[in-house]
Amino acid sequence: MNGDLLVKNVRALGGDACDIQIQDGHIAAIGPNLSVLPDVTIIDGGGRLLFPGFIDAHTHMDKTLLGLGWYRNEVGSLLTDKIENERRLRRERAIDSHQQSTRHARLAIATGTTHIRTFVDIDTEVELRGFEGVMRTQDDFRDALDIQVVAFPQSGMLIRPGTVELMETALANGATVVGGLDPSAIDRDPARHLDVIFGLAEKYDVDVDIHLHEPGELGAFSVELIAERTKALGYQGRVVISHAICLGGVDEAYLGRLIDLLLENDITIMSHGPSGLRPVPSVKRLYEAGVRMCTGNDGIRDAWGPLNMPDMLLRTFLIAYRNNLRRDDEIEMVLDIATFGGARVLGDTTYGLAPGCRADLVLVDGETHVEAVIDRPPRWLVLKGGRVVARAGECVV
Amino acid sequence: MNGDLLVKNVRALGGDACDIQIQDGHIAAIGPNLSVLPDVTIIDGGGRLLFPGFIDAHTHMDKTLLGLGWYRNEVGSLLTDKIENERRLRRERAIDSHQQSTRHARLAIATGTTHIRTFVDIDTEVELRGFEGVMRTQDDFRDALDIQVVAFPQSGMLIRPGTVELMETALANGATVVGGLDPSAIDRDPARHLDVIFGLAEKYDVDVDIHLHEPGELGAFSVELIAERTKALGYQGRVVISHAICLGGVDEAYLGRLIDLLLENDITIMSHGPSGLRPVPSVKRLYEAGVRMCTGNDGIRDAWGPLNMPDMLLRTFLIAYRNNLRRDDEIEMVLDIATFGGARVLGDTTYGLAPGCRADLVLVDGETHVEAVIDRPPRWLVLKGGRVVARAGECVV
Repeated sequence: MNGDLLVKNVRALGGDACDIQIQDGHIAAIGPNLSVLPDVTIIDGGGRLLFPGFIDAHTHMDKTLLGLGWYRNEVGSLLTDKIENERRLRRERAIDSHQQSTRHARLAIATGTTHIRTFVDIDTEVELRGFEGVMRTQDDFRDALDIQVVAFPQSGMLIRPGTVELMETALANGATVVGGLDPSAIDRDPARHLDVIFGLAEKYDVDVDIHLHEPGELGAFSVELIAERTKALGYQGRVVISHAICLGGVDEAYLGRLIDLLLENDITIMSHGPSGLRPVPSVKRLYEAGVRMCTGNDGIRDAWGPLNMPDMLLRTFLIAYRNNLRRDDEIEMVLDIATFGGARVLGDTTYGLAPGCRADLVLVDGETHVEAVIDRPPRWLVLKGGRVVARAGECVV
Repeated sequence: MNGDLLVKNVRALGGDACDIQIQDGHIAAIGPNLSVLPDVTIIDGGGRLLFPGFIDAHTHMDKTLLGLGWYRNEVGSLLTDKIENERRLRRERAIDSHQQSTRHARLAIATGTTHIRTFVDIDTEVELRGFEGVMRTQDDFRDALDIQVVAFPQSGMLIRPGTVELMETALANGATVVGGLDPSAIDRDPARHLDVIFGLAEKYDVDVDIHLHEPGELGAFSVELIAERTKALGYQGRVVISHAICLGGVDEAYLGRLIDLLLENDITIMSHGPSGLRPVPSVKRLYEAGVRMCTGNDGIRDAWGPLNMPDMLLRTFLIAYRNNLRRDDEIEMVLDIATFGGARVLGDTTYGLAPGCRADLVLVDGETHVEAVIDRPPRWLVLKGGRVVARAGECVV
C-alpha cells in the first residue's frame, strides 16, 4: 500500500468505459483494461460516470449561515439593502468566518467540488477578520480542496476610506486575486474604482475579478472600462467579469461589440444563471462566440437569500434551467464551463483527465453525464490528488 | 385497528406543534395534545413539518420517458420542432401511456403529490390511446392520487380535422377539462379555436385550461379573447390560462388592464417558473393583485426536455429561483400556490388542514417549511385520505 490506486471501469463524458491508474496523486494512465501494478489499491467503479473535479469559481465562504439555524430572510429589494442587512447580521450574530467556511468546505467536498475561488468581504467594520478565518480554512483543507482567496470590498471601496489599505494587507498575505464591484452603482466613480483595482492588481501581480450587476448600458460602459484597463495593463487572460448582467440587457449589435472586446482582451465571464425575471447573459451565445466562461454557486444560504447550495451539479442544472438549455449537447456545454472553464480561470495547469493531470476525480451513479445533472445523486466517490475526500455523499476529511 | 390514526407532534406553516386525529380518511381534529382514542394507530411525527398534499395542476403523464433509458435530446428550438419531434418519438418508441403514467404517478406520490391535473395528447395519429392509458392509471390509483384528465389537442385542433371529434369522445368518457393551446400560433385562427374550446366546455359542462406560450401582444390578445368568452359563457372561476408567458412581456399599463380582466372573470394563471432567458409572468405581482394562481411540473423528462421532475418542492424552489423570491414570506407564497391554489383549481372542496378536510398530508424533515423547499429531503410520510402512500421517499402503493 503506497497510496497508489487503480480505478476500474468508469465512463468519462464522450468516452467508453476505462480504467485510471493514479500514482503520486496524479493520473499515470487512463484507458481500457489497464494492467494492475503491485501494491495498488483497486477501486471498482462499476461503470459509474467520471467527472473531473468541479470548480466553483465564484462563492463567498466567509459569510454562509450554514449550521446556524434557519435565518428568516426579510431583506429589502435593493442591492444596498442586502449589503446593509448583511453587515448588521454579521454584527448581531458574530459570524465566525473560519467556522462558516469550514462548514461550506465540507459540503462542497461532499458534492465533488475540488477547487473554489472565494470572495472574502473586506471593509472598515469587519476589517481582516473574515479574511483571516478563510485563510485558516484554506490551510486546514490544503490537501482536500484548493481554495483561492479574493480580497473583495463588498461594502464599497472609495466610499469607505481605509478599505484599500486593508485590501493591500490581504493581498500581501495570501489573497491572490483582487475583486471589485459595480464601479458606478456602489462607488459612484467608475473610472477611479477600476483604476484603483487594476493598480492593486499590478502592484501585487494578482488577477482581477469584478462583480458587475449594473444593468443595460450602465453595465456595458463598465465592461468597456474594464476592457480598456485590461489592454493597457497587458492583463489579457487575467480578468473575470462576474455576473455581467448587462450582457443580457443590451441590443444585439452592442452585445456583438462587447463580445469583441471580451475576446480581444481574453476576459472571462462568470455566469451562474442568476435568479430573476430579467434577461441575463446567454451562456450559449457567449460560449459559442468563444468567450471564456466559468461559473460558481455565489453566496450559500447567507443574508442575501437561501436559494444557493454548494453543489456544482445543481449549479449546472440551474444554469441550464435559466438559459432554457434542454438538449444534451447544451447541458454538456454547461458541464464544460463548470469544470474545464473554471480550472482555466483558477490557473490550474494540472487539471483534467489526461495522464499527468492531478487526480481530482468525481464518480457518480447514472446512465449519462446529463442525467447526473438532472438527478444529482449523492457523489459515490470524490478524489482530491488521488486521496478519497468524500464517499456516498459525505465528506470524509 | 380500524384505520384511524393519531399523528402526534407535527408543525404546520405558521403554527405551533400539534396533533391530528384522522377518522374515516378525514381530519377529525387538529390541535395541541389531542387525546388518544381507542383502536387508533399512533404515528409520532417527531416535530416534523406538516404540509397539505401537493397539487401538481399542470403536467403530462401520458408522455414522460421515465424508465425508458436516457433519451438524448437533439430537438430544434421552435415550438413546432418540439411537437413534431415528440410525435416521431412516440411512433418510434411505441410509448405506452398506461405504463408511463404509472411510473409518473408513483414518483409523484413518493414526493407528496396528492392531486394531479394531467393533459393528455389527443390527435389524429395517437387518437385516444394516450387518453385510455391514463384513464386506466386514474382508476388504478383512485385511492392514492387524484388524477384529473384534460382532453388536450397538443398537435393542433383546427389544423387536424378529426381532432375535435376525438376530444368529444374523451369528454364523454371521463375527461373533465377541455384544453386548448396557442390559438394564433398553432391553429392560426384564434377566435375560432377558442369558440370551439368554449363550445366543448359548455356542451360537456367541463372546465377550460388553455396553454398560452404566445409572447407579448399576441398572447395578450389571446388573454382578451379568453376573458371575453369566459364572461359570455358565465364561466367565471372555471378557466385556467397556463404559462401566460405574455404577462411577462407587455408594458406595465397593459399588464394592469390584463390583470383587471383576469380578476373580473376569475381566471386562474398557472405558472411554473418556466426555464429561459426571457421575462416571464411575475408570480408575486399576480398573486398580490389577487389573481388566482396554481402551478405544476409540466412535462416530466419527455421529448420536450429533461429539466422537470415530479417533485412539487423542487417546483416551488424553481418558481422562487425564476422569480428571484428570496424572502421567507415570498417562498411561503409559492407554497400556498403549490397547495391551496391548486386545490381550488381542481375543485377539491375537502382540501386543507382543518377538521373535516380529507387527510391528504405530507410530513418532511426540516427546521422550517421554507428550508424544506431549499433542501427537499425525501418525504418522511405521505398520507392520502388517511392512508400511508409513501414513506422515506418511496411510494408504497
